[in-house]
Amino acid sequence: MDTLSALLTPRSVAVIGASADAARIGGRPIAYMKELGFQGRILPVNPKRDEIQGLPAFASIAAMPEVPDVAIIAVPAAAAGPAVQELAQRGVKAAIMFSAGFAEMGDDGEAAQARLVADAQAHGMRLLGPNCLGLFNARTGFYGTFTSSLERGSPKPGPIGIASQSGAYGMHVFGLARDFGLGLSCVVTTGNEADLNVGHMIGWMAQDPDTEVIAAYAEGIRDADSFLAALELARKNRKPVVLMKVGRSAVGSAAARSHTASIAGDDAVTDAVLAEFGVVRARTTEEMLDIARLATRKIYPAGNTLGVLTISGGAGVLISDAAEAAGLPMPQMPEPAQQKLREALPFCAPQNPVDCTAQALNDLSLVGTFAKALVEEGGYSSILSFFTHAGGAASVAPRLRSELAAVRAAHPDRLFVLSVLADPPLVRQFEEDGFTVFEDPSRAVAAIEAMGRYGDSFARVAPPAPPALPAFTLPATTPSEAEAKRILAEAGIPAAPEAACPTVEAAVAAAEKIGFPVVLKILSPDILHKSEIGGVLLNVSDAAAVRDGFSLLLQRAKSAAPAARIEGVLVAKQLSGGVECILGVHRDPVFGPVAMFGLGGIFVEILKDVSFRRCPFDEAEAEEMIRSIKGAPLLLGARGRPPADIDALKKMLSRLSVFAAQAGPRLAGIDLNPVFAMPQGQGAFAADAVIDIAEGDA
Amino acid sequence: MDTLSALLTPRSVAVIGASADAARIGGRPIAYMKELGFQGRILPVNPKRDEIQGLPAFASIAAMPEVPDVAIIAVPAAAAGPAVQELAQRGVKAAIMFSAGFAEMGDDGEAAQARLVADAQAHGMRLLGPNCLGLFNARTGFYGTFTSSLERGSPKPGPIGIASQSGAYGMHVFGLARDFGLGLSCVVTTGNEADLNVGHMIGWMAQDPDTEVIAAYAEGIRDADSFLAALELARKNRKPVVLMKVGRSAVGSAAARSHTASIAGDDAVTDAVLAEFGVVRARTTEEMLDIARLATRKIYPAGNTLGVLTISGGAGVLISDAAEAAGLPMPQMPEPAQQKLREALPFCAPQNPVDCTAQALNDLSLVGTFAKALVEEGGYSSILSFFTHAGGAASVAPRLRSELAAVRAAHPDRLFVLSVLADPPLVRQFEEDGFTVFEDPSRAVAAIEAMGRYGDSFARVAPPAPPALPAFTLPATTPSEAEAKRILAEAGIPAAPEAACPTVEAAVAAAEKIGFPVVLKILSPDILHKSEIGGVLLNVSDAAAVRDGFSLLLQRAKSAAPAARIEGVLVAKQLSGGVECILGVHRDPVFGPVAMFGLGGIFVEILKDVSFRRCPFDEAEAEEMIRSIKGAPLLLGARGRPPADIDALKKMLSRLSVFAAQAGPRLAGIDLNPVFAMPQGQGAFAADAVIDIAEGDA
Repeated sequence: MDTLSALLTPRSVAVIGASADAARIGGRPIAYMKELGFQGRILPVNPKRDEIQGLPAFASIAAMPEVPDVAIIAVPAAAAGPAVQELAQRGVKAAIMFSAGFAEMGDDGEAAQARLVADAQAHGMRLLGPNCLGLFNARTGFYGTFTSSLERGSPKPGPIGIASQSGAYGMHVFGLARDFGLGLSCVVTTGNEADLNVGHMIGWMAQDPDTEVIAAYAEGIRDADSFLAALELARKNRKPVVLMKVGRSAVGSAAARSHTASIAGDDAVTDAVLAEFGVVRARTTEEMLDIARLATRKIYPAGNTLGVLTISGGAGVLISDAAEAAGLPMPQMPEPAQQKLREALPFCAPQNPVDCTAQALNDLSLVGTFAKALVEEGGYSSILSFFTHAGGAASVAPRLRSELAAVRAAHPDRLFVLSVLADPPLVRQFEEDGFTVFEDPSRAVAAIEAMGRYGDSFARVAPPAPPALPAFTLPATTPSEAEAKRILAEAGIPAAPEAACPTVEAAVAAAEKIGFPVVLKILSPDILHKSEIGGVLLNVSDAAAVRDGFSLLLQRAKSAAPAARIEGVLVAKQLSGGVECILGVHRDPVFGPVAMFGLGGIFVEILKDVSFRRCPFDEAEAEEMIRSIKGAPLLLGARGRPPADIDALKKMLSRLSVFAAQAGPRLAGIDLNPVFAMPQGQGAFAADAVIDIAEGDA
Repeated sequence: MDTLSALLTPRSVAVIGASADAARIGGRPIAYMKELGFQGRILPVNPKRDEIQGLPAFASIAAMPEVPDVAIIAVPAAAAGPAVQELAQRGVKAAIMFSAGFAEMGDDGEAAQARLVADAQAHGMRLLGPNCLGLFNARTGFYGTFTSSLERGSPKPGPIGIASQSGAYGMHVFGLARDFGLGLSCVVTTGNEADLNVGHMIGWMAQDPDTEVIAAYAEGIRDADSFLAALELARKNRKPVVLMKVGRSAVGSAAARSHTASIAGDDAVTDAVLAEFGVVRARTTEEMLDIARLATRKIYPAGNTLGVLTISGGAGVLISDAAEAAGLPMPQMPEPAQQKLREALPFCAPQNPVDCTAQALNDLSLVGTFAKALVEEGGYSSILSFFTHAGGAASVAPRLRSELAAVRAAHPDRLFVLSVLADPPLVRQFEEDGFTVFEDPSRAVAAIEAMGRYGDSFARVAPPAPPALPAFTLPATTPSEAEAKRILAEAGIPAAPEAACPTVEAAVAAAEKIGFPVVLKILSPDILHKSEIGGVLLNVSDAAAVRDGFSLLLQRAKSAAPAARIEGVLVAKQLSGGVECILGVHRDPVFGPVAMFGLGGIFVEILKDVSFRRCPFDEAEAEEMIRSIKGAPLLLGARGRPPADIDALKKMLSRLSVFAAQAGPRLAGIDLNPVFAMPQGQGAFAADAVIDIAEGDA
């Protein structure tokens, strides 16, 4: 049995600090396992007792007659360290540490926690926690947790796995899931994540045959590699992941740091990475559970479309609004189908939403006719039917069920959702017929939209790795603009025609060769942000102006930065008629190099209208990034402009991403600002370039 | 008794088309009233029976022994017209028309519906419907409805009134409200709104002592006057209105039109008008009911702030994210209070969210200490406490209740919300203690934020009416640009210095007087969009260029619009250094003249970054409009720009709104595009102006 399976589906468990009192931390797991039918062996360890809750107890870890698959550590922090050592030495595969008083308590705790991990790793033992509420497996009855949330009811076994960094919040989600009647495979809380983290748990669930849907909560991503590998495995195995990643807000982010010392990361970057792996990010617990519940139908339509059948025009409008807001398309019914429905019921509204009006309640065969038309002629992959309290009325429900169930049964590939108000037994019957029931149609729409995102992600063929660049070496320190442009040009990232000119004569000659007007910029490896010292002159229109400008720039540089090494002046073609863009790369603390694309000036600085993507990526993905910003129409030819050279731009962006990925961790960032995207066929050129090298890391 | 009170709280009711069968449309209202204890008199009218459901029946309207307050019309469309006539003639104050087959059926139905209204109005009778599900009053037991939604349970009397244009959707909301245990005053559905509409119902509820909170649903606003008067009355009487106004989306809007032939109006304009009256617009049914439920506490804090007490750091982060997204401030606790809490509990996180950790469950007096500190030292107007399942645990709940209840009782002005998972009896106890309980903390945050919006609106002093302009007369037809600018200048809306020049000599002289560079524009009352025909020349820099430009513009105008009257060329100062804005007015079909403000170019056309407001409004509100757009930092001095002359801009915008309001319905629209907002102290000037006069309406 592999280590994580030993942790999540153990055949035997030791409880270090076992208590005879079922209400205490060391007593609860034993009580739960006895009550809820754990079939494996429980080994209570307590130096003062021979028997605990009816089970033989052992005085020490050494005294245990066998090596259990997993151990629960329910002793105070001071005793936890020795327990970890002994367990690891006996060959236990994994320990669940309830004990608090480690990294969450400051530097001393942090150091003690690091020792725990070192001691465990020395013998190959993995740790869950410390400072966690533990985990349980609803299928095997393994309850390695002291959560009091089980007091109000035990879980129903089923296909949803929950992984949460926060113990209290994870058990809150469990409590809601139980109250909603959702079936669970396992619930894991990871606490301080000294060793195992939420990513590991997602990864285990992604290969667990009993888990079909994964719901997770994280404040920060501690280890991008295991996290992303887990997401990719889940995607490959067609298991939807719905994630609540909190810490979006400034307050939230500060609170997250004080909580389990998480690295929050940049939220927009996180969004981009999650989208890349088809993870749906839930904003609320309710949304998380709605999505998980609908996902248990295992119907994930790529290219999802919504057909709506309603007995209320008002609800139809409301649902249409919700679908548009969610980005879920509602194409119209084909005209012949509309005609047929109008013949069946003269005052229906057959476009989509399809309003069969309350008339259909007087002749329920119409419901079958309409539902069949939506599926077979409308061809929608998802069908939402709104019958409100009428669907729950005794006079309507039995026939309604049979009409709908017949259509449902004939089309097992479609996602069918009902919005009805009905008593629980009737709701269960609808659910058994294959309908997922939501009281609130807006919540239904949000969940249906998510199923389409899973479908698209599962259907997506991983894009080919973009071609690598010839090997290159970064300079030892941040290079000058000219050097930066030369390095990038070799990587296929072109700058505007320009020349580095050490003398005024060279500058005049270069300007005449490039053609007026030109731009003059001070050339110094020590001055990164030239415009701040007045180091850039635009629209320099003749040789005399080049001469004047050259000396002006040297003067300004001397007075602003007397110690700076001045290498002369850069003479560059003044680009006009293009659209100003920004291309950049920064090193995200979690996900490594991340590329950014945006339009110049206010678009980036005031409107934050930018897109992000992990490096490297190919041109198709670069084009998606470019098209996804709100200001994209400016590049595509809005307001009578010529369309910009998107082909050149996407090539530049993809190359930049490959460059950043190959450059390694010494590359702190790259700024190409502005880049001029010229009219179609005329290329895209960086007018300025900064390559920022992290010093002291070489 | 006034007419609407006769409709909603009648002492006697006639049922035209009364049926002995309690399942039929004409039988249900009688059955419901008998079952649910209506104390007034019921007069069944049926030509074929002496007795209906145990009540004496009358053969005709004429045969009724008294004139009832209200009549229910439950006969087919063909018989409904004569019934309306007879009832009106007998002096009945109001009729509830279930009958369908009117405006929703096309032109013939529309005409028949208009006749109903005329016949009723001739005798002062008001109509609800036709094609509506009627209404009920849960306090008096008056059930003028045939909805089947009452089969699953009757309403609990209480303070929430529901008004809905859609019958099925209105009753869906009622069904959910009942299932959630919310107390209702009355539920009204307005159907085709031939006469009475949702606005009238909101207005009645705004003065009804039994209704404290108003929840409404509308697809379109049929009559702005009654609707806005109702909203203002509700605001004055401190009754919160939560409105679901659907038809935001293109599909939704089309569906709304096919439903009850509503005028959807422009959604952004609707948003602006609702904000003006402090109405909170709900996006989902659930949100509508969450807000209504919390509003029944009648605590509406102006300048709302949120303090969060949590036993879970994770939940604290999640709540912070939700608060930031909702725009609900969470200021930090004062430093001395933080210090005190750290002394009480060393490893708490006392900023806000205030995390008292699960430790507080071991010593529940800490909960009281922390809650008291939040209220008294934090001074938050709203407190959200997250105790999840621990708050529902038998070992915790009693002491938790008493700790929290003591703080709650000492501060009746604060809004207290609890997020716990508990069984219904315990939830009821918390509710009785004065806490509103939400399982989902995100939903709690959204509802708390809404209470603050009500508070701000109730506290707002209606702004003074902006000063009127001297009386003016619009020209008979759309004026030329120069004439438009002259008219606006008289209203205090300045244009850039310019002169209308019939001859080339006049143009040269004007340009020399204004100062170069200038702008030249073709001058013709028949050419509205000059730039489309190349009728604008920028940066004209000397006298020779003015001469060339003059003839070029005349040539272009002749070739593009041979029939246009050409009055010469407009010579205007070329403004530079200002920020380009757009000020405009259009006539909204529902709300009349509405002003728009935005930044020029792509901001309006691609990013739709604009704000709207009904005309007229004063300068303070104009400034709010200006500051509310996303691009506002550009005007306020972002990126090293000089701040623009906001004083001049807001004056211009307010004057424009007054001009539009005084101009009357012949004014179809005004476009000032661009307006240059010059640096502070240098004014704002329209560089172009179009006044669009509606023809044929004079």
